[in-house]
Amino acid sequence: MTTDQFADRHIGPDADGERRMLETVGYDSIEELMDAAIPEVIRWHGTLDLPAPATEAEVIAELRAIAARNTVAVSMIGLGYYGTHTPAVIRRNVLESPAWYTAYTPYQPEISQGRLEALLNFQTMVTDLTGMATANASMLDEGTAAAEAMTLARRTSKSKSPVYVVDADTLPQTISVIATRAEPLGIEVRIVDLDAEELPAEFFGLHLQYPGASGVVRDQAALVETAHAAGALVTVAADLLGLTLLRPPGEIGADIAAGTTQRFGVPMGFGGPHAGYLAVRAGLERMLPGRLVGVSRDADGNPAYRLALQTREQHIRREKATSNICTAQVLLAVMASMYAVYHGPDGLRRIASGTHRAAARLAAGLVAGGVSTAGTAFFDTVTAVVPGRAAQVVADAAARGVNLRLVDADRVGVSCDETTTDAHLSAVWSAFGVPEFTGEVTETLPVALRRDSDFLTHPVFHRHHSETAMLRYLRRLSDSDYALDRGMIPLGSCTMKLNATTEMESVTWPEFANMHPFAPGEQTAGYRELVTSLEGWLAEVTGYDAVSVQPNAGSQGELAGLLAIRGYHRERGEGHRNVCLIPSSAHGTNAASAVMAGMRVVVVACDDNGDVDLVDLDRKIEAHRDTLAAIMVTYPSTHGVYETGIASLCAKVHDAGGQVYVDGANLNALVGFARPGKFGADVSHLNLHKTFCIPHGGGGPGVGPVAVRSHLAPFLPGDPLGGSVDGQPVISAAQHGSAGILPIPWAYLRMMGAEGLTRATGTAVLAANYVASRLRAHYPVLYTGNKGLVAHECILDLRPLTKATGVSVDDVAKRLIDYGFHAPTMSFPVAGTLMVEPTESEDLAELDRFCAAMIAIREEIDLVGAGQWPAQDNPLSNAPHTAAMVTGDEWSHPYPRSVAAYPGGVDRAAKYWPPVRRIDGAYGDRNLVCACPPPDAFED
Amino acid sequence: MTTDQFADRHIGPDADGERRMLETVGYDSIEELMDAAIPEVIRWHGTLDLPAPATEAEVIAELRAIAARNTVAVSMIGLGYYGTHTPAVIRRNVLESPAWYTAYTPYQPEISQGRLEALLNFQTMVTDLTGMATANASMLDEGTAAAEAMTLARRTSKSKSPVYVVDADTLPQTISVIATRAEPLGIEVRIVDLDAEELPAEFFGLHLQYPGASGVVRDQAALVETAHAAGALVTVAADLLGLTLLRPPGEIGADIAAGTTQRFGVPMGFGGPHAGYLAVRAGLERMLPGRLVGVSRDADGNPAYRLALQTREQHIRREKATSNICTAQVLLAVMASMYAVYHGPDGLRRIASGTHRAAARLAAGLVAGGVSTAGTAFFDTVTAVVPGRAAQVVADAAARGVNLRLVDADRVGVSCDETTTDAHLSAVWSAFGVPEFTGEVTETLPVALRRDSDFLTHPVFHRHHSETAMLRYLRRLSDSDYALDRGMIPLGSCTMKLNATTEMESVTWPEFANMHPFAPGEQTAGYRELVTSLEGWLAEVTGYDAVSVQPNAGSQGELAGLLAIRGYHRERGEGHRNVCLIPSSAHGTNAASAVMAGMRVVVVACDDNGDVDLVDLDRKIEAHRDTLAAIMVTYPSTHGVYETGIASLCAKVHDAGGQVYVDGANLNALVGFARPGKFGADVSHLNLHKTFCIPHGGGGPGVGPVAVRSHLAPFLPGDPLGGSVDGQPVISAAQHGSAGILPIPWAYLRMMGAEGLTRATGTAVLAANYVASRLRAHYPVLYTGNKGLVAHECILDLRPLTKATGVSVDDVAKRLIDYGFHAPTMSFPVAGTLMVEPTESEDLAELDRFCAAMIAIREEIDLVGAGQWPAQDNPLSNAPHTAAMVTGDEWSHPYPRSVAAYPGGVDRAAKYWPPVRRIDGAYGDRNLVCACPPPDAFED
Repeated sequence: MTTDQFADRHIGPDADGERRMLETVGYDSIEELMDAAIPEVIRWHGTLDLPAPATEAEVIAELRAIAARNTVAVSMIGLGYYGTHTPAVIRRNVLESPAWYTAYTPYQPEISQGRLEALLNFQTMVTDLTGMATANASMLDEGTAAAEAMTLARRTSKSKSPVYVVDADTLPQTISVIATRAEPLGIEVRIVDLDAEELPAEFFGLHLQYPGASGVVRDQAALVETAHAAGALVTVAADLLGLTLLRPPGEIGADIAAGTTQRFGVPMGFGGPHAGYLAVRAGLERMLPGRLVGVSRDADGNPAYRLALQTREQHIRREKATSNICTAQVLLAVMASMYAVYHGPDGLRRIASGTHRAAARLAAGLVAGGVSTAGTAFFDTVTAVVPGRAAQVVADAAARGVNLRLVDADRVGVSCDETTTDAHLSAVWSAFGVPEFTGEVTETLPVALRRDSDFLTHPVFHRHHSETAMLRYLRRLSDSDYALDRGMIPLGSCTMKLNATTEMESVTWPEFANMHPFAPGEQTAGYRELVTSLEGWLAEVTGYDAVSVQPNAGSQGELAGLLAIRGYHRERGEGHRNVCLIPSSAHGTNAASAVMAGMRVVVVACDDNGDVDLVDLDRKIEAHRDTLAAIMVTYPSTHGVYETGIASLCAKVHDAGGQVYVDGANLNALVGFARPGKFGADVSHLNLHKTFCIPHGGGGPGVGPVAVRSHLAPFLPGDPLGGSVDGQPVISAAQHGSAGILPIPWAYLRMMGAEGLTRATGTAVLAANYVASRLRAHYPVLYTGNKGLVAHECILDLRPLTKATGVSVDDVAKRLIDYGFHAPTMSFPVAGTLMVEPTESEDLAELDRFCAAMIAIREEIDLVGAGQWPAQDNPLSNAPHTAAMVTGDEWSHPYPRSVAAYPGGVDRAAKYWPPVRRIDGAYGDRNLVCACPPPDAFED
Repeated sequence: MTTDQFADRHIGPDADGERRMLETVGYDSIEELMDAAIPEVIRWHGTLDLPAPATEAEVIAELRAIAARNTVAVSMIGLGYYGTHTPAVIRRNVLESPAWYTAYTPYQPEISQGRLEALLNFQTMVTDLTGMATANASMLDEGTAAAEAMTLARRTSKSKSPVYVVDADTLPQTISVIATRAEPLGIEVRIVDLDAEELPAEFFGLHLQYPGASGVVRDQAALVETAHAAGALVTVAADLLGLTLLRPPGEIGADIAAGTTQRFGVPMGFGGPHAGYLAVRAGLERMLPGRLVGVSRDADGNPAYRLALQTREQHIRREKATSNICTAQVLLAVMASMYAVYHGPDGLRRIASGTHRAAARLAAGLVAGGVSTAGTAFFDTVTAVVPGRAAQVVADAAARGVNLRLVDADRVGVSCDETTTDAHLSAVWSAFGVPEFTGEVTETLPVALRRDSDFLTHPVFHRHHSETAMLRYLRRLSDSDYALDRGMIPLGSCTMKLNATTEMESVTWPEFANMHPFAPGEQTAGYRELVTSLEGWLAEVTGYDAVSVQPNAGSQGELAGLLAIRGYHRERGEGHRNVCLIPSSAHGTNAASAVMAGMRVVVVACDDNGDVDLVDLDRKIEAHRDTLAAIMVTYPSTHGVYETGIASLCAKVHDAGGQVYVDGANLNALVGFARPGKFGADVSHLNLHKTFCIPHGGGGPGVGPVAVRSHLAPFLPGDPLGGSVDGQPVISAAQHGSAGILPIPWAYLRMMGAEGLTRATGTAVLAANYVASRLRAHYPVLYTGNKGLVAHECILDLRPLTKATGVSVDDVAKRLIDYGFHAPTMSFPVAGTLMVEPTESEDLAELDRFCAAMIAIREEIDLVGAGQWPAQDNPLSNAPHTAAMVTGDEWSHPYPRSVAAYPGGVDRAAKYWPPVRRIDGAYGDRNLVCACPPPDAFED
């Protein structure tokens, strides 16, 4: 009977706050402000056709009903997705803890030490288990990790051959992703049955699966030698749990290891999210795509973690890019690393042995019952040969509540995992029609392939085995970090808005968490309904005709969108169209994605106002009219401005036969007011972790659906098990990508409704203009649009101040930590500036606290400029100040400790203290250390 | 297939740690240690008959199956229990957050400011809504709050009359609790239909229900005047949600207000836990039982919260006690207070109005359909008069998924709440056989009773209405506090062990959370199965024959046990037996409970060794042989010693016709090794929040089951709706007390099994003896038993050091905060000592960290003693040191800042900073402020 509107909880300012903000900006209503800000040519005056908003209680009830339409069977399908027990202490204190899930990517390392330590543990875990030298801080899934391994091999191999050999016993979805990625790059994928066929004479890389998709464990040492002799690099896609018992790829000279860490405590989630991994031998570490955590030192010389080689990653090197990977799967990588920390090497070995014993018993039972199996050496998966009756066995097992893998008409795959019980084995035997097996079984791993090397020897994998110790370790790490649960994270272009609890809750329900991506359709009705309605709502919001949620990161959405354009041109016999125009202000991933899609990047200049220079655009179109494939623009622009020329831009490109790609990164400034699919664009990707409330998780998961107009719909991502190279592209290993977190945007849309979404957009734009209005006198606002208004973010230009005083944008960002804030986006899209995006979720009190801090910092800059504080020793240059520093027995700085620690009236009782001082990034890049350092490195 | 034993996660020390601890203590095995420590005369050599331990995954599966046997219908039963929407942000970040639920009672206020602020909000919420002057920090439930109100009236009233008048329209379970409590105290309860009957001429107190159990809202002003004229005090049991619309009790001169805050976002949980409330008019504040949070100041003069009048509460004044209340319902009070903070006064009014409108529509529909209702003025509850067909209506509604209240054969009660929907009303109308009602309805609250006064005007109720703001407020408060998720809380007698996540998880499942305590039996099969098996396992563990989980706190268990003894003696015609022997070392609640049970307390001395003086016992038995009712002892003793005389003590008391009550507070030292029910005791209460892992929640919930031998079983707590005064006592308002949290001990017992429980006990005793061994050279260990061994805790005697150096036990306790610890129990049971109980959950690293801190503190004490640091200005006397202090621009202390902040190598990056300096308790008691102070009180 009561109407507790979720929108009122999601949106920070109340009516009074909104009124005061409007007063400051100089408008009477949000409607009036938006009329002024958004060019009428793109403005949409309709109302989104979405269901009327549900309350939080109603949406939970609806989600429970949807969840109930999923049937969670016991999954023994395998193929890279396994049942696993998420330790409850990790689920509650990582996956369900805002301190972890609302954190941003650790670009401000001083306030991200907790998750950086967890990621370093992850890297150590991967390197130890694979026997490789260096691992990165996670990939999106096994398929994309394998694809990145291929391109890494391509750019490293001395072979001129375009051939990439793929083990025929590779996971089928991995082959699909590799094939999709290979084609635009001119790589020729050759699937080879390595048991039967020879390797070709020339090839640049070899992809092996270990154990094979069939479960068979092979000695691959000779293949590695042969490949190396041909100048090829070898990737081994290895199962990490198996590697606790099996000789790891690093010990046979593999160059790259790739795979997934899903079974380390991360639920299957109908395909994701979970962390893929990528590791390389010594010498290749600087070739690794994605994020790499390294150990450096802070201003006091203490060890401190940060993203290594960061410039490479954060600002993907545009047209020279080799990968567009931007998001990792940090939250899930943290979970997997903690699973290893909690179990330790002995615990992991126990789990692996138990899994193997189950498979061995299973196989023994089958053989005793007269069913033969493919191969005799296996770890967890048995392929049973049942000529002509595979489908019947699978159906029979399903009727008993167990899903098996239908390989083909004659073969059935059965995978064991740590959740396998005697009852499951009994059900499988029954399905095969063989008797219960009770005999003795011995290990079947070949002696030569058994692992005898140690792993996870670092103390961190030995100290936290009781739940009490684990809980405290998680608390200690998260206490090091600054996330949305402490205060505002005004990161331009990142939209750090509320991740509401009600949106998050259903993610950990077993009906959503424990679904295998290849479960039979009749068991996944709930999920499919969720995906269908979500895709429909996203199409309505964006004005497109079709949406696919398969891309599991924004970068993947970009690739998917560009591949759709590529497919469209090729289908029309215009495969020669390969030029992609990209404005100079674009995010680096745009260009990188274009390169990956086989396009040639041509940069379009910006004018003095920061907008796309339409004259230069004309020039570039003219120069490339015949080969023009697309233009890729962000709207509102990465400068945070509603460019008025957008409609004209679209028309010009269309006239030249090109397609228009509008990057949806800034959709939070459009929802309810303008729809890219209706104002001229052909395709967009969205970032559900921006506009649609999936939490950033400290640097992933992300979800990047691709939305297209109908003519591009046939080129949307296809079924990873479909296997066709020439058909639809396969972007992720699972049909619906990171399906497990789709309840989050679903709940957001369902609770906001048309009116709530529109109000959120208006409030976000109001908040940005409020901040711009209040700070303009202290820092110039770099670019604006209509009537001097910005969109949902604003760029504060520090360059004149830096020139005058030497105080850098870095100094201001770090000083904000002392004031209790996460810095805005630094030096993107314009070096020497800060880009502020307050979002609609911050209330006026928090906006004012931020403005007050920025104004106080401006006063501090002036004191430096006036020479009152030396340029090399002032509160800005020394920021952030740690408690250890400010409580030091000595204090030699020309400003008092109180100014260091509590500037601008920071609440002394609730002060957030960064754990380290400013970190020296260059030192860490020169001295690359990417695994856990020995404990004595941390001694005082 | 893998055997991941929960016991290995619950128990802190691993095999290596255990070995090293045994070495230090000087035993080869835990078995050998326990043989030496426990007197053979009580030692039990059997194996507990419990199911084999389940893994965490298995216990979750079993609990899901049990939960599925509950049928959660829509509850419109009312009677003090209502549907409510727990805001998800509060559920996740309070009820599911270890930072809140693993906290201890805020006896160390410097490290409890967060929950103290939340409790002050609670008190402000209650005083504002009731219009009273002062509220305490919560009661156990409405029934017990009403009973405490009665005794408060008794000791305050000038009337000599023994008569307590109770409004006949009072909740029936409240009447049961009042009747149980009244009888032993000689209070005569008179139930009066105030609509029809006159008040008696003489009475000391009057209990009114507002609105009545029937839903009727009456003007009670005249009754209050009449009562006051008779010298009686008036308690109004008022519905807090109703008070947002209705004139509050304080505005008609009520002396006391009592009730529940359940419907403020706390799930019904089949009866509990939730917070009751008790508030009084000006002049009575120092008579309030239970805990009272007040504002005082710290050593810097800053406002700081702490428990006011604490000595009264913590050390219940034994035989002079007026209440035995020791535990509050802090976790639930925090939730209710946050519900008010989140909704604010306008939100609460909206919820109340919506609820009222639903009831008004409901009634209008009934009346339009020809069904009459009792009274026309109501808030949320309508009593429908349907002569002869009430049972049928109730059954019909139940078939439609809605539970109504069967008042009697002719009347049906229907209560609305914030979860009521149109569909629910339709179902009810259908059950009554009346048509859907679509007419207009107006409010039915009498104009004269409408509230026109403001409430919740303090800014805290206006600042946190967005989810983002709420999340940060909760984070900030919990960050102020020290709980088990930060480190050890070695509180003697409190058993602060792990509260495992798997134990906690099912508590928030809807099948357990949303059950009304009076739901029909066929809907509660799961709960009843859970209670039955838990009671059985507890009986097995303790060696008793019968157990009742009804008492919702240890104090209530004590009362229940003593009332069983009282009932037994009376049944045998020995009602004159009323002397309860209590050793001088006993916890204060023991004596207080005895007084409440109508007994006379006679203290038995302790000998020099701290044990019960058996000679004095003989003397006291002799002196009271004919009137001896019972002896009440704690075992092992509150001195942490296995007294060897226990068997003899039991025999002596039995020989004299008395019963033996063994307080189960220290059961963690017995489980698996000795069973009170088999070594001579007749009755015990247990503390499920100690030995059986219910978290302390910052000072509640607690659960205190009572366990008895068969001859006392007929006197165990009875049905609160049974209504019989002479039958079984009624201890709590709900049959199974705080049923909603019983899955916690159930899961603990189920996962530990006999072997795990026994190992836990042995490890707890080993840990205490390890600490005693390591610290003995630095602090004398006060009492020991066999072979110089302690049980599960040890007392460190600081008195000689205090005498020599002036450093007090308080100084050491506060200094431990600087070292990153919660203090041990201070000055209980012996003034000037610290009692340390490490529990089995702390691993060796944490035990060693604690011992190192204590040894380092001893060295600091010596420096004070040696005059190196002045007695009034040293790290101990100034402890705890806040960041604000240590970062001060000035530093005038004779020791460096580093010694203040990071003694003994405290990790600088992970330092816990208390938010305030040492708090002046006496100042706060003199200047009692128990509601939120204005914000400017906190300005620097």
